[in-house]
Amino acid sequence: MTEPAAAAPNNVRTVGVLGAGQLGRMLALAGIPLGLEFIFYSDRPDDTARTLGDHIHAEYTDLEAIASFARRCDVVTFEFENVPAATAEAVSAAGTPIAPGPRSLAITQDRLLEKTTFHKLDVPTNAFHAVNNAADALAAIEAVGLPAVLKTRTLGYDGKGQGLVRTPAQAERVFDELGGVPLLAEAFVPFTRELSTISVRTWSGEVAHYPLTQNTHEAGILARSVAPAPNVSPDLTKQAQQAAERVMTELGHVGVLAIEWFEHEGRLLANECAPRVHNSGHWTQDAAATCQFENHCRAVCNWPLGPSHVIALDEKRNLICVTPGVI
Amino acid sequence: MTEPAAAAPNNVRTVGVLGAGQLGRMLALAGIPLGLEFIFYSDRPDDTARTLGDHIHAEYTDLEAIASFARRCDVVTFEFENVPAATAEAVSAAGTPIAPGPRSLAITQDRLLEKTTFHKLDVPTNAFHAVNNAADALAAIEAVGLPAVLKTRTLGYDGKGQGLVRTPAQAERVFDELGGVPLLAEAFVPFTRELSTISVRTWSGEVAHYPLTQNTHEAGILARSVAPAPNVSPDLTKQAQQAAERVMTELGHVGVLAIEWFEHEGRLLANECAPRVHNSGHWTQDAAATCQFENHCRAVCNWPLGPSHVIALDEKRNLICVTPGVI
Repeated sequence: MTEPAAAAPNNVRTVGVLGAGQLGRMLALAGIPLGLEFIFYSDRPDDTARTLGDHIHAEYTDLEAIASFARRCDVVTFEFENVPAATAEAVSAAGTPIAPGPRSLAITQDRLLEKTTFHKLDVPTNAFHAVNNAADALAAIEAVGLPAVLKTRTLGYDGKGQGLVRTPAQAERVFDELGGVPLLAEAFVPFTRELSTISVRTWSGEVAHYPLTQNTHEAGILARSVAPAPNVSPDLTKQAQQAAERVMTELGHVGVLAIEWFEHEGRLLANECAPRVHNSGHWTQDAAATCQFENHCRAVCNWPLGPSHVIALDEKRNLICVTPGVI
Repeated sequence: MTEPAAAAPNNVRTVGVLGAGQLGRMLALAGIPLGLEFIFYSDRPDDTARTLGDHIHAEYTDLEAIASFARRCDVVTFEFENVPAATAEAVSAAGTPIAPGPRSLAITQDRLLEKTTFHKLDVPTNAFHAVNNAADALAAIEAVGLPAVLKTRTLGYDGKGQGLVRTPAQAERVFDELGGVPLLAEAFVPFTRELSTISVRTWSGEVAHYPLTQNTHEAGILARSVAPAPNVSPDLTKQAQQAAERVMTELGHVGVLAIEWFEHEGRLLANECAPRVHNSGHWTQDAAATCQFENHCRAVCNWPLGPSHVIALDEKRNLICVTPGVI
């Protein structure tokens, strides 16, 4: 797959954001002090970011409204990874750069492409196999071993769109429960804990990373992040950050990229990635020299990044951030 | 002077701000993440804070517009100390609390009342004397000694509205140059350096202070702040903060109060105070656990204060903030 390099924006003053929720709001609160103005585009009239800039309320599939929105912006970004490909194309067709770009969207919207990319780049991940129909399901769980997890290839989040398979007999039932859509079978990992990397890359390839963060989920929703994650060796951090860098380079990624990792037997296995600012990085607002939201703005605007080191630690050099899943 | 205690606001959602410039903008950027909404009122159509909330463009003397604005707000504050008394009264008459209150405005708008208050509270200050006419000027500079500084009682800022008097013969000329209005004569202090305290007080009397800041002015405008100020003994800090606390209590002050100090022969002499967030506290946005803007919002909203300690220091434990005078 060859992706022509998109032209980077220059002299950005107005940033367009697809989506106008919590993450868009935090982007604006970080970008406004830099002198940026924001235009939000979302399909709900009452989204929380709407008071921090202009707000266009229309469907994401309304490509005329998208083109009109894009023409008012110097660059367009997004707060959710499920931006339809046609929507992103309509932004580009209007002559406005979009960051992250179409390749970041395409790969991260599809768990199979995502896992395949990890595999291709030697980023450790658990065994996986494509599932296109009920018969495949059985073959796939044999290939990855039991217990296995079946996940929809697209649109899953917060633990939705997946089911655990403990016996071969359960495979077909879980396939049906998930709606008979294309799935991915993955080996179930009895992980010790979940960690995440928040990384950011600019149009010119400059990269910065935040320290690894340890995350605890409750009912599939992130409940608590501890940063920097305790008991992480410098070597493990280096491996994780180098892997994130390989993924960003492969995608030609511009902006923040979050990777969620399972720690298992002393190794990190890539679970999934998100081409956007991430709720496990909310702590950077208060405790990093430059927060993930400001660095995302800097990256998409074709500016240099700010330093990403931690500036506030408790006496044990840990920072604890209780992250509400929903505001 | 007895001031009936105004009723504190409850369940504040909407904060009104008189003025919509740089400081109002920073207040909104700190208050919006707390869930507050802002309405700005200013006499210029293009003020910089206008995009962070509703903006009412009208004269400060338009008391009907002020009342209509106040009725939309749960509490009203301001970004500049020269709010006319009638404007503040119109806010109160509309049933909306204003913080800081009328007494903070009255005292800090008049250099003579301000100095008299310092004197009454045993807050060290330089010698001063009222000047009501040209004949007074000569008597006043004799009382305070030469060289002396003549200052307008009201509306001076950034070095404007004052003149140095080196000889008795200059007194009448400077009085005339300043427009023949009531003045204050002050002993000229050959100070070593200028420092400031940023303090904050809530409706219930809770108080917090930021570390003393060292300020350098160029052409009368603040050019550079270093915080925490170097070479300040804990005892000097304690004296300055206790003095600020006495002033705030005397005024029944709610919100941030800044006091500018001259350091002279190892003592701090109060120069003037401002009943608002202050440009020598801009560094708190990046380097204090809670910035002055957030704590001002918290105070006026009748909320508890956030911690004011410094969270980011360089290897010498100093933080240097270059403060632009005008944005």
